[in-house]
Amino acid sequence: MMTSPAAYDDNNIFAKILRGEIPSHRVYEDEHTIAIMDVMPQAPGHVLVLPKAASRNILDADPATLTRAISVVQKIANAVKDVFDADGVFIAQFNEPAAGQTVFHLHFHVIPRHEGMALKPHSGKMEDGAVLAGNAEKIRAALA
Amino acid sequence: MMTSPAAYDDNNIFAKILRGEIPSHRVYEDEHTIAIMDVMPQAPGHVLVLPKAASRNILDADPATLTRAISVVQKIANAVKDVFDADGVFIAQFNEPAAGQTVFHLHFHVIPRHEGMALKPHSGKMEDGAVLAGNAEKIRAALA
Repeated sequence: MMTSPAAYDDNNIFAKILRGEIPSHRVYEDEHTIAIMDVMPQAPGHVLVLPKAASRNILDADPATLTRAISVVQKIANAVKDVFDADGVFIAQFNEPAAGQTVFHLHFHVIPRHEGMALKPHSGKMEDGAVLAGNAEKIRAALA
Repeated sequence: MMTSPAAYDDNNIFAKILRGEIPSHRVYEDEHTIAIMDVMPQAPGHVLVLPKAASRNILDADPATLTRAISVVQKIANAVKDVFDADGVFIAQFNEPAAGQTVFHLHFHVIPRHEGMALKPHSGKMEDGAVLAGNAEKIRAALA
């Protein structure tokens, strides 16, 4: 069943972030997984959870990689709900372009939601670096 | 961090489905998890993955419950991609009403996506039972 529609390209932007070639606002890191601020957040506190292991998406991921990642997703979901005083948390994971995937390294979106506030489009402009840094600091403090 | 905003209500519709009090089109079952057809599918082959253990959503779930569920999500994602010849798969998990949760038992949506076909609203009408039964049969065959 583990059909992979295309090979993993290790020059994707998340691979570069994982190698430290591109900066990111990291809120969490362990042996297998990192979590970073989305630079085009759909709401304040929008975090991405990325396994360190290479896979294109959920379709070709190693099951152990996936189970470690979802545990981090849970930690981040509770942290951003608290930090941003959110009413809810939306978790989304896109596989292939038809489903909205734009970076081809497995990742989960963790997005705080507030009643009556629509999500911003993901293709919007880059958030200010100082705002992302400030939000990252609050999330790290909540996780500590 | 495991703040639960409200107690688990064991009369929610998924609890009733798990107890067999309400019928469902099951495509998968193991000791810890089931997968059923969504009766208001956003696309043909829209499946829900539900842990048997009671939790309101990801915020209060036992981590072991969650890791078992995500492994089933992966199996179902590959199966529906194959069965419905999909170009992609969208996975979504809603926590609390502000994030779109309407049934308060943890579940993952697994939705096949095709290029150029928008998702139907989830609040649409019930799908015909024979259609759901036919799709369920194809998914069970792909998983077997």
